Amino acid sequence: MTDKVVGVLGEIFTDLLRWIFKKSYSGGGQLGRMLAAAASLLNIKIVILDVGEHAPAKQVLAPTSTQYAHIDGSFTDQARIRELAAKVDVLTVEIEHVDANALAQADGCEIHPSPGTIKLIQDKLAQKQHLQSRGCPVSDYIAVDSTVESIHAAAKKLGLPLMLKSRTLAYDGRGNFVLRDFDEVPTALAALGNRPLYAEKWVPFTHEIAVMVVRSTSGEVRAYPVVETVHKENVCHLVFAPLRTRDATLSRRAQAVAEDAIKTFEGAGVFGVEMFLMDDGGLYINEIAPRPHNSGHYTIEACETSQYENHLRAILSLPLGSTALKVPSCAMLNIIGLSSSMDEVTDLTNVALTVPGASVHLYGKSECRKGRKMGHITVVAESDAALRTRLRVLLEALPSSPITETDLYAPAPQTPGSGFASAHPLVGVIMGSDSDLPVMLPAARILDQFQIPYELTIVSAHRTPDRLVEYARSASSRGLRTIIAGAGGAAHLPGMVAAMTALPVIGVPVKGSTLDGVDSLHSIVQMPRGIPVATVAINNGTNAGLLAVRILAAGIPRLVEAMDTYLKNLEGEVLGKVEKLKEVGWESYSVKK
Amino acid sequence: MTDKVVGVLGEIFTDLLRWIFKKSYSGGGQLGRMLAAAASLLNIKIVILDVGEHAPAKQVLAPTSTQYAHIDGSFTDQARIRELAAKVDVLTVEIEHVDANALAQADGCEIHPSPGTIKLIQDKLAQKQHLQSRGCPVSDYIAVDSTVESIHAAAKKLGLPLMLKSRTLAYDGRGNFVLRDFDEVPTALAALGNRPLYAEKWVPFTHEIAVMVVRSTSGEVRAYPVVETVHKENVCHLVFAPLRTRDATLSRRAQAVAEDAIKTFEGAGVFGVEMFLMDDGGLYINEIAPRPHNSGHYTIEACETSQYENHLRAILSLPLGSTALKVPSCAMLNIIGLSSSMDEVTDLTNVALTVPGASVHLYGKSECRKGRKMGHITVVAESDAALRTRLRVLLEALPSSPITETDLYAPAPQTPGSGFASAHPLVGVIMGSDSDLPVMLPAARILDQFQIPYELTIVSAHRTPDRLVEYARSASSRGLRTIIAGAGGAAHLPGMVAAMTALPVIGVPVKGSTLDGVDSLHSIVQMPRGIPVATVAINNGTNAGLLAVRILAAGIPRLVEAMDTYLKNLEGEVLGKVEKLKEVGWESYSVKK
Repeated sequence: MTDKVVGVLGEIFTDLLRWIFKKSYSGGGQLGRMLAAAASLLNIKIVILDVGEHAPAKQVLAPTSTQYAHIDGSFTDQARIRELAAKVDVLTVEIEHVDANALAQADGCEIHPSPGTIKLIQDKLAQKQHLQSRGCPVSDYIAVDSTVESIHAAAKKLGLPLMLKSRTLAYDGRGNFVLRDFDEVPTALAALGNRPLYAEKWVPFTHEIAVMVVRSTSGEVRAYPVVETVHKENVCHLVFAPLRTRDATLSRRAQAVAEDAIKTFEGAGVFGVEMFLMDDGGLYINEIAPRPHNSGHYTIEACETSQYENHLRAILSLPLGSTALKVPSCAMLNIIGLSSSMDEVTDLTNVALTVPGASVHLYGKSECRKGRKMGHITVVAESDAALRTRLRVLLEALPSSPITETDLYAPAPQTPGSGFASAHPLVGVIMGSDSDLPVMLPAARILDQFQIPYELTIVSAHRTPDRLVEYARSASSRGLRTIIAGAGGAAHLPGMVAAMTALPVIGVPVKGSTLDGVDSLHSIVQMPRGIPVATVAINNGTNAGLLAVRILAAGIPRLVEAMDTYLKNLEGEVLGKVEKLKEVGWESYSVKK
Repeated sequence: MTDKVVGVLGEIFTDLLRWIFKKSYSGGGQLGRMLAAAASLLNIKIVILDVGEHAPAKQVLAPTSTQYAHIDGSFTDQARIRELAAKVDVLTVEIEHVDANALAQADGCEIHPSPGTIKLIQDKLAQKQHLQSRGCPVSDYIAVDSTVESIHAAAKKLGLPLMLKSRTLAYDGRGNFVLRDFDEVPTALAALGNRPLYAEKWVPFTHEIAVMVVRSTSGEVRAYPVVETVHKENVCHLVFAPLRTRDATLSRRAQAVAEDAIKTFEGAGVFGVEMFLMDDGGLYINEIAPRPHNSGHYTIEACETSQYENHLRAILSLPLGSTALKVPSCAMLNIIGLSSSMDEVTDLTNVALTVPGASVHLYGKSECRKGRKMGHITVVAESDAALRTRLRVLLEALPSSPITETDLYAPAPQTPGSGFASAHPLVGVIMGSDSDLPVMLPAARILDQFQIPYELTIVSAHRTPDRLVEYARSASSRGLRTIIAGAGGAAHLPGMVAAMTALPVIGVPVKGSTLDGVDSLHSIVQMPRGIPVATVAINNGTNAGLLAVRILAAGIPRLVEAMDTYLKNLEGEVLGKVEKLKEVGWESYSVKK
């Protein structure tokens, strides 16, 4: 495959960061550790330069010869850099806060991403200028110096609240200050430590999203699925993949923005592109990380190739791997230290062992500290609803998790038959009028019985045409996999919905006061070539529900077995009647309707 | 989670095996290596006793303190065993050919599986007697001594061909001899090295299948999905998960056989149960491995919890993990050395890097030898058809792969529109009569267009009722996810198929010479409560194909996008006609039918 040796620069400047922000620093070698684990599968030799013999990455990679022994030292030690560069063919980083100038002087090996890219990304102002000059969407900004006057001028131009940001060495929200009032300027300057700053227009985003992009040495780029990231106290807390939204074009737009941005940088590897999503669907790039990223941990369990393996492939000029999801739904929860005690971490991981589809990753850090990333948990599931049910168990086990958060990201599963919509439905049950409810309720009952999350509502093709368009257009991107639509008379609802979504639409003809429902049957079934509606018998909501279950089974194999059991029970019911008929005789047999 | 330390006994008796069989031995520490990789995610401390400082498992697990340093030594060294036992809380093995008596004397720690279980399983005759006495299905056998007379007597009783098997130290087919003729007895005795033997009735199996089972310290068992294993020269070559068969009950029966067998053994951990599948659906247990197994490597990428993590959970009395598949289809290909050169291994892994969904696992072995397991490749895909297409690329890259094998396990993808059935169809297109073909062909054209593998054939409800039953009953277990059935007149085919499968069935009413197809429409759509048929418009095969695509999209998200594009094109076509109408005027506009 490759004989090249890869050098990884570990957690550089940790002490410096700690000194500047007087806070603990939440990095710690886990990216290098996961990179090393991916490398060991491919027999790729890795040499790590980091402080300490037992750094997380070093634990999972015992050198097979002294030639490739890890190096114990800091990146500031020029002699160690030369030692590393002499040993390896390709040098990469697990954090961007490195001395790019020193890196550029490492002779005799390739460096990915290029020192120039690292330098550009390190300075957030330079990064923004670069992105803006290449036509990438960024919010308005102004360079400021650390004076009250300069910041006042910026605030007058960009408005309040105003983001004041440290140009360098910012991480997990450290180095940011939200200025809400002119009086706060001295506080802000003190908090930001009189470092080089810039001001950014406040972006009233509705969601934070992220896209990992891998870039080959020849400049080919491939985007991973778009994810939603949820931050808590400025630290990434939860990641959901794939992104669900009412906007069907969003995923492709966000991937294009991310790919276009990464095309503008030199050097190979994976890059994390964090973005703000606006209420109107607009996107702004927040910042870029030139390395494997927290928002891409989920790729280990959920994608065909993990971000770590793809980083190695990219920097070693090997073919890039597929970035496709291999599971329907996935979430990642960071395990963040709450104190110097490991107890909370242990409690949470013990709960994770009871959650199906949950994979625990502990980083082997010897000490716990408040705010330190100690590990993460990835959860996979067959649907968003199943995912949130699994995730809820973990969120409830977080000592610091307020109920509201749990409700927001992992709503309580609906009691079957509760009469209210699931927050993460797989099936949409809609009807033209509330008078259709008696026909459609049996469909809901079937979905309850098979424990399939659904929503049930009224959408009238003729009286709420705008609602119809909105409902049908957004259905697929909201995670629905099939729609059951019932209507009577000139029954246009199922066909019109089918015309505006790629999902399978099941039509239920509802019998009206004339024509025995044949009007509605023909309205629904006789669709023109190109747009099918899966029509069931007149007034047969039960069969519509059962057909939805059979359709979902194409993606959820357990439903095939459940449906087999249902059919067996039907058979049992009829055979029971056979027995009864034999027992009581047909003269005294009473037929139940 | 746990503070317990796990000790793993490495590749014991390798030299002994090599001496006995005068052949290279294909084990080598990879099971320990993958176990160690799983342990590192959970911060579980592992100490490995094996020969050599750079054994595969030791490479991925650098001890964080001298207290847990690996031990360099052989299991025959009693002092080393005591040293290991004193360091650890739980002792486990990566191979069953250990000195069980010596293991039983390791004091001060739990041992999983129990030395008694290992001893029982080591001796294949004792293993068979044990299984038979517990009611587990095994083929007939007789203990023999290493004399010509004894073997003649066995052959007279059990018939020829006869399996002669070494009771102990057999591995990857070594220690087995197929006796086809009485003249071969001296040859057999020489080949088997005059070791303790037994004779086994030849089992004319059609397939070899396997089930991994995890057993907790409290005796709870959980089966993984049933897989098909394909052997080449007695060595496991390919594994397919899940098993596809016409027999819908097989998977559950095989899991039950495997679980029942493992319930009879003491001690915790994962066990591999290899079985023979007979032509009549019967099952025989071939043998049991008391450890992670080659047929379970696929679980790393394809299941919610890997066999390695579940082995650790089991022996540490942690909750067992979910054994469910998380991908629709998976295969595992062993990378087996062909010579002392690494070149073929490198060539194959280079090809694997170009295959989407393929994950390469190299075991870090420093030397290649003919027959040595150097690594494996796991391939995952959205369907069996996509899997075989991906796998075919790998099989073609095997220098030793004859074309017939490639054809058998990874048939060439059908050219769209080729007019012949795919070997791994997702959709079955059936019709009551060849006269329905013109109506059903457009459905096939649509499936071609969306590159969905399908089969197309004739199944008449009234003229071939047995074929109907067989077709419908086997559809789901053969991997079909939806069926399109077309029929005219008293159109019973779609409804009867729906009654005998849990898959969604799409019905196409075919217009006959009378009643304009309404007879057929009502026959198909007016199904009784319990059994739905997704009915489309009369003669509208196109819409049946499109509905199948929409249904498959529930499990294959890329199809949602493809269908969106299709709908956009429909819109474009009509808008083109709008333009043309404007251009030429309606008087001279000619309507195409």
